[in-house]
Amino acid sequence: MQGRRSLCTMTPIPGILTDRRFRRMPGSSKQEKPIGIFDSGVGGLTVLKALRMRLPDEHFVYLGDTARLPYGIKSPGSVLRYARQAATHLKSRDIKLLVIACNTASAVALADLQRELAPLPVIGVIEPGARAAVQARPAARHLVLATEATVRLGAYGMAIREFDREASVNELPCEMLVALAEEGWTSGSIAEAIIRRYLDPQLGGATSPQSIILGCTHFPLLRETIASVAGGGISIVDSAGTTASVVARRLQDESLHRPPGGGGRLELLATDGPRRFARVGGTFLGAGLSPEDIEVVDL
Amino acid sequence: MQGRRSLCTMTPIPGILTDRRFRRMPGSSKQEKPIGIFDSGVGGLTVLKALRMRLPDEHFVYLGDTARLPYGIKSPGSVLRYARQAATHLKSRDIKLLVIACNTASAVALADLQRELAPLPVIGVIEPGARAAVQARPAARHLVLATEATVRLGAYGMAIREFDREASVNELPCEMLVALAEEGWTSGSIAEAIIRRYLDPQLGGATSPQSIILGCTHFPLLRETIASVAGGGISIVDSAGTTASVVARRLQDESLHRPPGGGGRLELLATDGPRRFARVGGTFLGAGLSPEDIEVVDL
Repeated sequence: MQGRRSLCTMTPIPGILTDRRFRRMPGSSKQEKPIGIFDSGVGGLTVLKALRMRLPDEHFVYLGDTARLPYGIKSPGSVLRYARQAATHLKSRDIKLLVIACNTASAVALADLQRELAPLPVIGVIEPGARAAVQARPAARHLVLATEATVRLGAYGMAIREFDREASVNELPCEMLVALAEEGWTSGSIAEAIIRRYLDPQLGGATSPQSIILGCTHFPLLRETIASVAGGGISIVDSAGTTASVVARRLQDESLHRPPGGGGRLELLATDGPRRFARVGGTFLGAGLSPEDIEVVDL
Repeated sequence: MQGRRSLCTMTPIPGILTDRRFRRMPGSSKQEKPIGIFDSGVGGLTVLKALRMRLPDEHFVYLGDTARLPYGIKSPGSVLRYARQAATHLKSRDIKLLVIACNTASAVALADLQRELAPLPVIGVIEPGARAAVQARPAARHLVLATEATVRLGAYGMAIREFDREASVNELPCEMLVALAEEGWTSGSIAEAIIRRYLDPQLGGATSPQSIILGCTHFPLLRETIASVAGGGISIVDSAGTTASVVARRLQDESLHRPPGGGGRLELLATDGPRRFARVGGTFLGAGLSPEDIEVVDL
């Protein structure tokens, strides 16, 4: 499957650059190296978007493991294996920091990858998400909407209670929300009805949540509809923004910041289906993509 | 991942038997060998159910490639590779006939697998589905509901027009229906609204279909809701029953029929997540399953 790459692209996204030119960039100091990001598919593009807004001068290489998506319904053993392969591929592209932009992979693989890839900094999305939720609403009742695998591992509950002993956490698997976001049906009566089906049993009683955490990178696309169903007074939290802040701080701490000027470049990789990646991914990234913008790699 | 197997199971499904005992069965004549079936996940269990009803004395080995599901949004190259691995695994279990119980894999891989596995008979679900549709409604306007990959390949259109030159065929990708069936939301207002969203633009005009083909093995679970949205006068066709008839005829032709008596045995394999397989698969098979009924294999 190797070999599909575009040497020259013209797209509404500024700074898409192919692998070949990227790797041959002159003067590749430590600071010039790209930040690697991976997700099971296009969901992590919501995190990439936040990172590019926060760090416009950084280069990014994004890998969507579309051949094996979704991770959220698979076993921890499989998710760990896939995450390891994605991380190894990105490491071979000489990245300076790795972001696991997938909640399921963060829940399963963060500790292993941090240990195995050291001294490369590896950052997941769950701890930043948990921190954001606790900051927005201390000592609160949190409801985490996530995939089946993330819920089963209880990673949000553990992370939140580490920051806030008085918090209570309930985690709810919501697979249909992944399908909704992928299909682009992010608002309207069907999206509302599906969100109601998940949320209604949680809302209104004595244990009604004060905070809803979007514990899957697909869910920020449904943020407004989730907020309207949840009603006023409930904080809606996602980890994209806080993850970007954590990454920015880490770059500063380790003097890995790329100096301003010239703008950062973006490279997009997928393990399968560049056509679908371009179509669905454009929605997530908030910009037009064409299949030629995506390089297909085999892990 | 090898090694998870149950030597003794007690479930409401009669005849579940583990691999080890299956392979050591005494007197394994050609007729005694099992029929192999594979699908990307649990969808093909609707085909297995029809096969077991039609051929209650046959042994079956079903493999759900749950580690790589869904196939329907992946590229033909990946689907062919996965199908080949699944078929090779089943062949190693000494099957007498192979059923590709997945529309996408049938569209992509049938011809290759027939050639590569010869003289083992290999049967897909698309030709039987097309034949059923044409028999139910000659010279009709057919609407095929399927996955993105099946639609892109246009396999139903080709198969139907081969049987019936006067038929017209429209193929529609309906990914949300896969998610609905997996979540078990097969009736009620949400299922209806989603089906309406796909069907309404197709219904009522001069090109309104006279026949709807369920071109994905997940969709028979939504049959009643699809029929009620479509309204009277439209045939709803799926390939499970016709596939079972094609298999029965082939066994007869090649003298591979297992003689009556004792009842057929069933073995269930998955490449990942036996818990989810048991929970979701039970709905598809129309019988209770427990994770211990499923052997996890690595392809």
